Amino acid sequence: MYRSHNCGELNITKIGSEVILSGWVQRTRDFGGLTFLDLRDRYGITQIVFNMATDASLCEQARNLGREDVVQIKGNVVERSNKNFNIATGEIEITAISIQILSKSKTPPFTIENDTDGGDELRMQYRYLDLRRDEVRDKIITRHKIGSVVRNYLNDNGFLDIETPFLIKSTPEGARDFVVPSRINSGQFYALPQSPQTFKQLLMVSGFDKYYQIVRCFRDEDLRADRQPEFTQIDCEMSFVEQEDILNIFEGLIKKVFKDIKGIELQDFPRMTYDQAMELYGSDKPDIRFGMTFNRMNDWVQGKGFKIFDEAELVLAINVEGAAHFTRKQIDELTEWVKRPQIGATGLIYCRYNEDGSLKSSVDKFFNEEDLKSWADHCGSQPGDLILILSGKTEKVRKQMNELRLEMGNKLGLRKAGDYKCLWVLDFPLLEWDEDSQRWFAMHHPFTSPKKEDISKLYDDPGAVRADAYDLAINGVEVGGGSIRIFDKVLQAKMFERLGFTPEQAQAQFGFLMNAFEFGAPPHGGLAFGFDRLCAVLGNSDSIRDYIAFPKNNSGRDVMLDSPSVIDDKQLKELNIKTTI
Amino acid sequence: MYRSHNCGELNITKIGSEVILSGWVQRTRDFGGLTFLDLRDRYGITQIVFNMATDASLCEQARNLGREDVVQIKGNVVERSNKNFNIATGEIEITAISIQILSKSKTPPFTIENDTDGGDELRMQYRYLDLRRDEVRDKIITRHKIGSVVRNYLNDNGFLDIETPFLIKSTPEGARDFVVPSRINSGQFYALPQSPQTFKQLLMVSGFDKYYQIVRCFRDEDLRADRQPEFTQIDCEMSFVEQEDILNIFEGLIKKVFKDIKGIELQDFPRMTYDQAMELYGSDKPDIRFGMTFNRMNDWVQGKGFKIFDEAELVLAINVEGAAHFTRKQIDELTEWVKRPQIGATGLIYCRYNEDGSLKSSVDKFFNEEDLKSWADHCGSQPGDLILILSGKTEKVRKQMNELRLEMGNKLGLRKAGDYKCLWVLDFPLLEWDEDSQRWFAMHHPFTSPKKEDISKLYDDPGAVRADAYDLAINGVEVGGGSIRIFDKVLQAKMFERLGFTPEQAQAQFGFLMNAFEFGAPPHGGLAFGFDRLCAVLGNSDSIRDYIAFPKNNSGRDVMLDSPSVIDDKQLKELNIKTTI
Repeated sequence: MYRSHNCGELNITKIGSEVILSGWVQRTRDFGGLTFLDLRDRYGITQIVFNMATDASLCEQARNLGREDVVQIKGNVVERSNKNFNIATGEIEITAISIQILSKSKTPPFTIENDTDGGDELRMQYRYLDLRRDEVRDKIITRHKIGSVVRNYLNDNGFLDIETPFLIKSTPEGARDFVVPSRINSGQFYALPQSPQTFKQLLMVSGFDKYYQIVRCFRDEDLRADRQPEFTQIDCEMSFVEQEDILNIFEGLIKKVFKDIKGIELQDFPRMTYDQAMELYGSDKPDIRFGMTFNRMNDWVQGKGFKIFDEAELVLAINVEGAAHFTRKQIDELTEWVKRPQIGATGLIYCRYNEDGSLKSSVDKFFNEEDLKSWADHCGSQPGDLILILSGKTEKVRKQMNELRLEMGNKLGLRKAGDYKCLWVLDFPLLEWDEDSQRWFAMHHPFTSPKKEDISKLYDDPGAVRADAYDLAINGVEVGGGSIRIFDKVLQAKMFERLGFTPEQAQAQFGFLMNAFEFGAPPHGGLAFGFDRLCAVLGNSDSIRDYIAFPKNNSGRDVMLDSPSVIDDKQLKELNIKTTI
Repeated sequence: MYRSHNCGELNITKIGSEVILSGWVQRTRDFGGLTFLDLRDRYGITQIVFNMATDASLCEQARNLGREDVVQIKGNVVERSNKNFNIATGEIEITAISIQILSKSKTPPFTIENDTDGGDELRMQYRYLDLRRDEVRDKIITRHKIGSVVRNYLNDNGFLDIETPFLIKSTPEGARDFVVPSRINSGQFYALPQSPQTFKQLLMVSGFDKYYQIVRCFRDEDLRADRQPEFTQIDCEMSFVEQEDILNIFEGLIKKVFKDIKGIELQDFPRMTYDQAMELYGSDKPDIRFGMTFNRMNDWVQGKGFKIFDEAELVLAINVEGAAHFTRKQIDELTEWVKRPQIGATGLIYCRYNEDGSLKSSVDKFFNEEDLKSWADHCGSQPGDLILILSGKTEKVRKQMNELRLEMGNKLGLRKAGDYKCLWVLDFPLLEWDEDSQRWFAMHHPFTSPKKEDISKLYDDPGAVRADAYDLAINGVEVGGGSIRIFDKVLQAKMFERLGFTPEQAQAQFGFLMNAFEFGAPPHGGLAFGFDRLCAVLGNSDSIRDYIAFPKNNSGRDVMLDSPSVIDDKQLKELNIKTTI
């Protein structure tokens, strides 16, 4: 037996017991004749005491231990004189009887402390040591707990966890597939799923009614910060439901997760259409922890001779409460900030509503105080506020203003960690135009149902067709999204046609699904949450990597394994493929 | 709202309610002025009644419905005059008020009944329809339930569900990897995991202590019946444990699954060493639902002038209770059966212990009745029994006799469905010799720990080294296996050397793990269950395919998707690969 207890469970009720503990040496400290050893495992830290006076050789042995050595210690539980009420085991310590070294450790390349001295790359290379640090370990444990809560909620609501295949068929629509050469079927390839979308729809056709899976998905995209080539979805689908049914069940899920994991009772989630979100926040996933919504200024600012405004398709203002005290220097910095290529604005106009009621703008040449007062009234500004204005093409200026709003939220501390605001964004457009390929793409995916009343516009005005599609945003992060699906073969064929598929292409790629619709498909819809993302949002973390045990870096490499890597010629030969570089 | 209730929940307590149901038309029957419609969903079947006298047009509409049409029906719950107590909804029926057709169905290519007229291939091509059949659907639901029980048990025992990567590094040791070309890292490949073995060991090094995952694994093997290129494991690992700890926790898991799923309380599992299993059953996964164990006959049969026995390395007999009545014809058939190439015996000797106490064998020329009596005594035979004897090289004759024993078990009805016998097989050999490549291979995998007392034989007598490795067999099927792992870098390096790796090869392939062992690795071990297999065993099914929603056929193809398939040249180009066929 390696241990009678773990390092997190002994307390004063166990005083007098002889125990065996196993774990890692967190640190040793010598105080005159005493040596204290902090023994660590997943559950906590227990203090072990060695006394030079009573057992010099054992004490000597303890002093020779290094950090991260794995040891087994037998000893007696005694009450501590110097109690530490911050940890569960802080009222006791163990008087050691014997030590057995189970495994020596070299000096780790970085300290196993929350405040480690290891850089990102080094910690990723030794991820198994990084995972020993409390804060990293706790994130992985939290992920486990969130997964359990999700499963229990869905099980309790009659959902079935049904596994779908990983070796599927490549369907070039959407993101790029990872492919897997087949040895037995030479010259042919499987693809790894970007999501189980078509399978969950087939399960609905099969009558399974309520499906879920916490499942790995794969996308071979050009990587950006905080994108992983493999990621995990909480993937769900339901039959005989309308949008309202779906929103209710998954709002319940998110509430349950927050309650069980964070102890937070969330209020009912507000809802907003995509159009409203874009008008008020310039984003389809607005952070509604703070206001500072957009004001359309065109009617207030155009026709006064200021060319930039006059030529703009859209002039937008936000009112920044209590920011009139911003200095000229601070505003200049903001102006530089919006002019960076990442934001791309040509400039920033401001109007300061001073505490004394006077108004001052950077465009006083064109606008008198009465004009400025009308701006302030339109924006709901009060003395002490600062109005910031951007102008240009609608889509661009909205994006820029969204960034500026979030930045002002950050600067003023309005995006509080620990404050969680969920929002349903509804009625997404069905299609979006791609300039590069000069064609319409499905905004969600090709299986999303257009709103009934908009179907007639599919050809005349495709951009105006709204979908029965919805996203859940928490604190400005999209954590999930879904839609009501098409379940009619004719409409599905029409959709593929609209997306530029020939009937043959549609049949070759998605024939199995369209054929399935001919044998009695129920109305159905669903939703998928990004599990990594949901964990990160709950943990107030910007990075999903923290919540993945073995993540890849921004080039899609696992630096610990040194993968991907070249493979044997023999393997390539068996697969009947050749590399061409 | 598509439904107020599902098709399995209405009963006499709901009489008088107006309800809305949605589902599939299982069948319609006309009786004079009445039409009965069985409406089906995942939860059951509800009978709907249409009356020609009260609403002719509605009744006409119902008569025009086809099998598998999806309809929504509004109606009133009434008590049935002709009750069916076999189904939950059998005491009520619904008097229809209206029908709405949600989705028409073509005539399915086979009947959606347990006793379907569809062949295997057709059902696989239309798997989404096959899944509608009660017995198939129930298997998928049972799988969901087993998964839940497993997770709850492991969660309750402090295990953490931790996800490991799917895009990993190819390590040619063991079975063949599926590989995934990397586009961003040209000329390099990921591999799909054959199991998360090295990751779970790294998690132990990280201190996670108790890990599990229900996880997809991939092996590119030449397919045989009932092998899938992708399969699911219940993968577990624990730190600071000895073999006994692991056996106990997972025996508890299996007991819990049988109790919760089948209502069966299993007794403590017997244990047997690998050597015993081979001697008594000729199998490392014996079916112990029945006896008929092997008897070594060499000392009883050799030296009497019967050349076949005299030259045999091993002569084995089984005593088949109560089978003395087997006719000459039946025994001839058995002889042909063991001589088939799949079994490969050269012949079968029998000795009949007649009810009258006389003995008769097929080798009476060489053995007198006294000899035969000594055989019977040695085999524990009674009058009325039949002794069957095979001889030859040890390994072959054991395999043959194992097959014959199982066949006799089948013939005599001793392998009863619903009777479950679990067995731990312990002390597997560490290594096995491969004739083809003339080298030793790890029987379990290269991370398995040899028994301490056998380590010294690693070089002198590799075949005699036993491992701390164990399998769980249920009714003759291996449902799981595992081992205590090596956690010492030096021993791990020695093991790789023994397997023919140069130090450089070992470092290149498994360096990340061996390096991890230098930073304080805890003693650890684990086990993995084949989840598909476990489900099949619980369901008394020979085929794991029944328990997989979308299985592949024996050529690794998904006939529903028609996958694998050729991919675009554009895709190949982006990946910098070429097919060579």
